[in-house]
Amino acid sequence: MTEPRPPFSFRLDARSGAARAAVFSTPHGDVHTPAFMPVGTHGAVKAMTPDQVAATGAEIVLGNTYHLALRPGEGLVAKLGGLHGFMRWQGPILTDSGGFQVFSLPNKDISDNGVRFKNEVTGDAMELTPERSIQIQNLLGADVIMAFDECTPHPADEKLAATGVRRTLAWMERCLAAHKRDDQALFGIMQGSVYEKLRRRCADALVAMDLPGYAIGGVSVGEGHELLCKITEFSAPMLPEDKPRYLMGVGLPEDLVAAIGYGMDMFDCVIPTRFARSGVAFTVRGKIRLTNRRYRRDGYPIDVSCDCTACAGGFARAYLHHLFAANEILSAILVSIHNVRFYERLVQNARAAILAGRFADWRSEFLAEYVRETASE
Amino acid sequence: MTEPRPPFSFRLDARSGAARAAVFSTPHGDVHTPAFMPVGTHGAVKAMTPDQVAATGAEIVLGNTYHLALRPGEGLVAKLGGLHGFMRWQGPILTDSGGFQVFSLPNKDISDNGVRFKNEVTGDAMELTPERSIQIQNLLGADVIMAFDECTPHPADEKLAATGVRRTLAWMERCLAAHKRDDQALFGIMQGSVYEKLRRRCADALVAMDLPGYAIGGVSVGEGHELLCKITEFSAPMLPEDKPRYLMGVGLPEDLVAAIGYGMDMFDCVIPTRFARSGVAFTVRGKIRLTNRRYRRDGYPIDVSCDCTACAGGFARAYLHHLFAANEILSAILVSIHNVRFYERLVQNARAAILAGRFADWRSEFLAEYVRETASE
Repeated sequence: MTEPRPPFSFRLDARSGAARAAVFSTPHGDVHTPAFMPVGTHGAVKAMTPDQVAATGAEIVLGNTYHLALRPGEGLVAKLGGLHGFMRWQGPILTDSGGFQVFSLPNKDISDNGVRFKNEVTGDAMELTPERSIQIQNLLGADVIMAFDECTPHPADEKLAATGVRRTLAWMERCLAAHKRDDQALFGIMQGSVYEKLRRRCADALVAMDLPGYAIGGVSVGEGHELLCKITEFSAPMLPEDKPRYLMGVGLPEDLVAAIGYGMDMFDCVIPTRFARSGVAFTVRGKIRLTNRRYRRDGYPIDVSCDCTACAGGFARAYLHHLFAANEILSAILVSIHNVRFYERLVQNARAAILAGRFADWRSEFLAEYVRETASE
Repeated sequence: MTEPRPPFSFRLDARSGAARAAVFSTPHGDVHTPAFMPVGTHGAVKAMTPDQVAATGAEIVLGNTYHLALRPGEGLVAKLGGLHGFMRWQGPILTDSGGFQVFSLPNKDISDNGVRFKNEVTGDAMELTPERSIQIQNLLGADVIMAFDECTPHPADEKLAATGVRRTLAWMERCLAAHKRDDQALFGIMQGSVYEKLRRRCADALVAMDLPGYAIGGVSVGEGHELLCKITEFSAPMLPEDKPRYLMGVGLPEDLVAAIGYGMDMFDCVIPTRFARSGVAFTVRGKIRLTNRRYRRDGYPIDVSCDCTACAGGFARAYLHHLFAANEILSAILVSIHNVRFYERLVQNARAAILAGRFADWRSEFLAEYVRETASE
């Protein structure tokens, strides 16, 4: 196995148990891992300016190939400076392949060639194939692009999962052949559902291709925390030590903490921003629902231990409660900033614990204080 | 006539024709005039953080007594540090009296005592009187509070307008008697509709009360640009030279430029933020509708001459067009920042021209370039 080729590199700084602290270097800058990537589906992290995203400590953001191809179209994004120029994000960007979105559509036609579906915006028939996904991602110009894989739904029987692995591997070869840019790292995605044998088969074949990074896909599809942990625990060690490992679409804070413990490096999820817009904020003691009447007169910030613009800025829970009641956009802005900062602080604290060789202790401390379901909900 | 009493002061820096440049000092800082006040109806300038509001150059913001009294209630705001602490705005704040809102309600019962109406939030019967308005405003704690006046609708016959003036003057006395805080300046409001004689009667009576500031009310109620200009032109000189003059609820850029020329100092309006949310942005050449297809591939910022976060940050019109199409909150954020900055730059440029003794020339230059209705709309 070799290092990722320049301009990419991956430097392992420390291990604590299976948990890893590393630096993944890309053409647009370094990503310190464990890393959480806020999601900018349409080329914007919802309710946040790029400056506000950067201020949370986020070093890399995610864009969705499916949504951007439908609107405004990858050609226009390329014309306007690629996704970096279009959304004015200076740091690294990762785009997914669109596979997860098209496999989530109610009506689609899957074949060995790709997936046919109806364009939600125009109503036209469309097809996404490995070649087309890579062509779009080459035009979007993210630093990290993802292979077009078959995301097996959950639950899936072993035969269906095996088909997913077979297609994912065949499509990986086609993605590699289609990929035209040296300044973009094409990550492979491991499928295989809950089946360790299939995960192993998929991992071995991908690792033999010597890719610059690897993802565990087919998770965060409704399998729940316990099964996610089980899959990640047996899958992570199948991936090379000297390449970044990305757990796709994960997740809740307790999911991240567990997955970091299994040796995963990168994460993305809509939860911090989506929950924010519905009034749910993360604190070191668990989630709180700011729209709950109990916060109507509460003069404390969301989390007294937080240094985000909302908390350090002294915005009271009662003020946020009021903003939600009055349908003020500022409610979504402030709580999104807070929640993304919570996630970034979580991975920063995990990294510090790994560097100090005390990840397991830190995890115990975090989980002892963090109540997964709070009385306030 | 005397200066406003400490902690308030008003220093006239320059005149250019009837236009004035001054500094109005308040307990929370100085306001350089002409000044535009962004509107924070529910204690938040829509789609902007207080930092973003301050970065536009805005020195003072407005809060709405009616909306804040209904929700979350002035008692809660007072408990949480007053409106400054509640909304985390460090600079001066002005609250209106609630009069404009209750007079705009479809069902209300107006008497010499005050206005009875139904609480929109709870459905309860409520009454707003001069005493109650001042009591609420004393609790909200803004630097400048406004008298509870009868805002005469437009058009109004002379008899109705005269009743409005009579009530407004009687209520002014009651407001003064009810007002309990020396750290809040209570401004009087001149009514009288389109009738110069009534405006004069109202102004003379208010000026005899030696108030710390004066507003022209009963405008921006559908009378249009020409009539607004006419009313302002004959009303402004009725007000003292040594006190701030506030034109309530005004307006479009061309309204502000005209009113500054008649000697008005302070303005507030929801237009910059409201237009922003519907995709309309202000430029030195006029308004543009970013949702228009002509901007779909436009790589330029909203206004190349603008230094706001959106324009200087390089966000393309095509990107903003895309954000509106995708219903992204960031569209409202970026265009609100731009539009408020446009208004603040407008009053800053007017001030600079007044200080340079060339206001009339500057106004001609501005109006020559600024097209009131553009082909793109």
